[in-house]
Amino acid sequence: MSARPPKPPRQERWDRRMETPLTVASLAFLTTYAVRVLARDRIPQTWLDLCLAVTAAAWAVFVVDYAVRLRLSGLGPLRFVRAHLLDTVVLVLPLLRPVRMVSIYDRVQRRHDKPRLGLYARVMVYAGLSVALLGFAGALTVYHHEADAPGATIRTFGDAVWWACATLATVGYGDVAPVTPVGRLTAVGMMACGLALLGAVTGSFSSWLIQAFGREDDKRPPGNSPGAS
Amino acid sequence: MSARPPKPPRQERWDRRMETPLTVASLAFLTTYAVRVLARDRIPQTWLDLCLAVTAAAWAVFVVDYAVRLRLSGLGPLRFVRAHLLDTVVLVLPLLRPVRMVSIYDRVQRRHDKPRLGLYARVMVYAGLSVALLGFAGALTVYHHEADAPGATIRTFGDAVWWACATLATVGYGDVAPVTPVGRLTAVGMMACGLALLGAVTGSFSSWLIQAFGREDDKRPPGNSPGAS
Amino acid sequence: MSARPPKPPRQERWDRRMETPLTVASLAFLTTYAVRVLARDRIPQTWLDLCLAVTAAAWAVFVVDYAVRLRLSGLGPLRFVRAHLLDTVVLVLPLLRPVRMVSIYDRVQRRHDKPRLGLYARVMVYAGLSVALLGFAGALTVYHHEADAPGATIRTFGDAVWWACATLATVGYGDVAPVTPVGRLTAVGMMACGLALLGAVTGSFSSWLIQAFGREDDKRPPGNSPGAS
Amino acid sequence: MSARPPKPPRQERWDRRMETPLTVASLAFLTTYAVRVLARDRIPQTWLDLCLAVTAAAWAVFVVDYAVRLRLSGLGPLRFVRAHLLDTVVLVLPLLRPVRMVSIYDRVQRRHDKPRLGLYARVMVYAGLSVALLGFAGALTVYHHEADAPGATIRTFGDAVWWACATLATVGYGDVAPVTPVGRLTAVGMMACGLALLGAVTGSFSSWLIQAFGREDDKRPPGNSPGAS
Repeated sequence: MSARPPKPPRQERWDRRMETPLTVASLAFLTTYAVRVLARDRIPQTWLDLCLAVTAAAWAVFVVDYAVRLRLSGLGPLRFVRAHLLDTVVLVLPLLRPVRMVSIYDRVQRRHDKPRLGLYARVMVYAGLSVALLGFAGALTVYHHEADAPGATIRTFGDAVWWACATLATVGYGDVAPVTPVGRLTAVGMMACGLALLGAVTGSFSSWLIQAFGREDDKRPPGNSPGAS
Repeated sequence: MSARPPKPPRQERWDRRMETPLTVASLAFLTTYAVRVLARDRIPQTWLDLCLAVTAAAWAVFVVDYAVRLRLSGLGPLRFVRAHLLDTVVLVLPLLRPVRMVSIYDRVQRRHDKPRLGLYARVMVYAGLSVALLGFAGALTVYHHEADAPGATIRTFGDAVWWACATLATVGYGDVAPVTPVGRLTAVGMMACGLALLGAVTGSFSSWLIQAFGREDDKRPPGNSPGAS
Repeated sequence: MSARPPKPPRQERWDRRMETPLTVASLAFLTTYAVRVLARDRIPQTWLDLCLAVTAAAWAVFVVDYAVRLRLSGLGPLRFVRAHLLDTVVLVLPLLRPVRMVSIYDRVQRRHDKPRLGLYARVMVYAGLSVALLGFAGALTVYHHEADAPGATIRTFGDAVWWACATLATVGYGDVAPVTPVGRLTAVGMMACGLALLGAVTGSFSSWLIQAFGREDDKRPPGNSPGAS
Repeated sequence: MSARPPKPPRQERWDRRMETPLTVASLAFLTTYAVRVLARDRIPQTWLDLCLAVTAAAWAVFVVDYAVRLRLSGLGPLRFVRAHLLDTVVLVLPLLRPVRMVSIYDRVQRRHDKPRLGLYARVMVYAGLSVALLGFAGALTVYHHEADAPGATIRTFGDAVWWACATLATVGYGDVAPVTPVGRLTAVGMMACGLALLGAVTGSFSSWLIQAFGREDDKRPPGNSPGAS
């Protein structure tokens, strides 16, 4: 979204061709990671190994895609990393992988030339979906590391989801909270990313509401005194 | 509010005719639901059944209104749902019904061509009332499901209201917090809706304050040095 | 600040004449209320009675000022209340009285035609001072009602101030929290007013920062590539 | 950043000459303070004394720099303090010293005429780095004063960092919270500064996201219906 110069045609073609594989890989990554964390004790080891393999394969797809796009962009690695920060973070932290799916959805949407939502609505949908996926991935990781820790208050996946929601909304009741270093690190990452994204949702909603109320005023015949702010 | 094409006259007429019934239905829904939750053990079963009937009747009014408006709009169901998202959510979650009342109040206000509040003030009033109704409905539901749960910290309706205020303000002391799945689900819903609405209130107030201070500068004679930011 | 039509000269004169008495009354109100709450057990009853008398007298000054201004404005009571909402709230809730002091300070500042702060800085100062006074008044009231309550966690005035800061910042640790109905009601009022005001501070600071960074760009010679946003 | 009149050449020269010493002093201050707090019991007293000396020397560098710049500016002390508020606060509260480093980094960046980040990105980086340094300095101070306090919940530096993150994000779980007066005072300071800065980060990110989505719309051929908000 931040690449301002017009893309060369080969890059365009690559982007288009990779849409389906990337979506599939994102879904596969999220699903298999979730299965491995949530069904640890309930499914045979063979399945867990299979899940791990799929997770790794999905990751490989993203690495290849990133490398090819770096190649095609014609930019140096450093400038490319700067222009595609989200993609890069996602490459290093597989946990955030699913968030990419949102931008793929956006790209598909655009290609089909569908009548799209308004600007604020699109920001809300984009940031809102990102927050939801981030929260889900965060809850998975925290549950993964907290469930068996001594003195942990997050003991079920339900607790982890409840904790993730309270954290992202900055409510933070504190009835459940991570106690392990990895759990707390994940929490800090969720706060940093989630609050900025949620701020975008809230800000867009607020702007949209003000715009909607303002438009309503414009529609009224000019003879009426519209009141003053 | 988001229907941009001019409404056909029949739709206008329907909107106008339904104002009073919809307000009455909203009030009836809220009141009877509140009575059923708060006075459970204090009034005879017959009254509770009557309340349930009124609640259901109020819901039916909304269903009929929604169906007629879908019909009159001439849009396909999907596009209609998109354009009237709030009405649709309200139809599915009767809990949020009372929030509709605010937009009815707005419509009545407009029809009487009263000198209206300024743009930001109107957004503040609208979003503020919605938050208040949302908080009340949320407190009712949470109290309904938590009061008898084992290990619950929300034991009285006062606790529930206190919890709802602390949650909507994102303060979240955690001295009282829901423990049941339904209570927590309601809480997550309140966070999602409430924070966006409260953000609109806060944002509008902030914009209004900056505007008010800015206007004050403009009123000063131009000879005075207005200082610089 | 929200009175848009030019004020009649008599009103101007009244405003000017009342500046000093109103400031003195505000300070007297705040001081005597604070003394009554904080030094309850340490000073003789006579002094407490004197404080109460001064508090009442300060309140009377505000009532008289409000009545005269209502008279001079030539507006009906309802329209006057709407245009002077803050003054009206302050009249009913003596607790918020000190907040008025800020607007008096602003008025004095303006009369002396001092080179004033920029728009955002002024909003920040105004809203920041209001929040500080609100927090202090809130801490006083909560301490007043919680100190002797059974099961209270707010036992000293220091606890009350700590709680007020954590509440206004929406952090809400929950290590101390009000348990009495009056304390909780005060807390809800503080949340409602404080969050909107704090949002104004934060929003202004953010706007100011963006403006300052933007101005820096403008100052650079146009030959330099300013980068792109 | 807030000095609007063009700087006299001697001031420019001083600013340029002091860049390296100030950066070194900032780093030295932060490092030696951190060593003194974190390694109290693990390194011999001589080293601790050396650290204290370096801390004091770094502080002296800032005092001298401030005095010279006040001199060169040709402004009165009061107006200078007003125009350089951050520098002044930093002078009084050595804790906030490292935050200055960010503006030095900004100045170096500008001097090298590097293609710079966009406006919003720069605000985000600036405010984000300031928050990070503020959080680190706050965690150090709180750990310093809480570690040995009776009844403290912040017992390790890890706890202090976790608490600082939860506080700056306004989540405030309350599982760990300061109990000493100095610790709570630091916390209040962190809330006041941190929330405004974090608001700037969030606000800039939100504006950047909306801008990025808006630019995307502009790039589309005008024949396509861009949808409406």
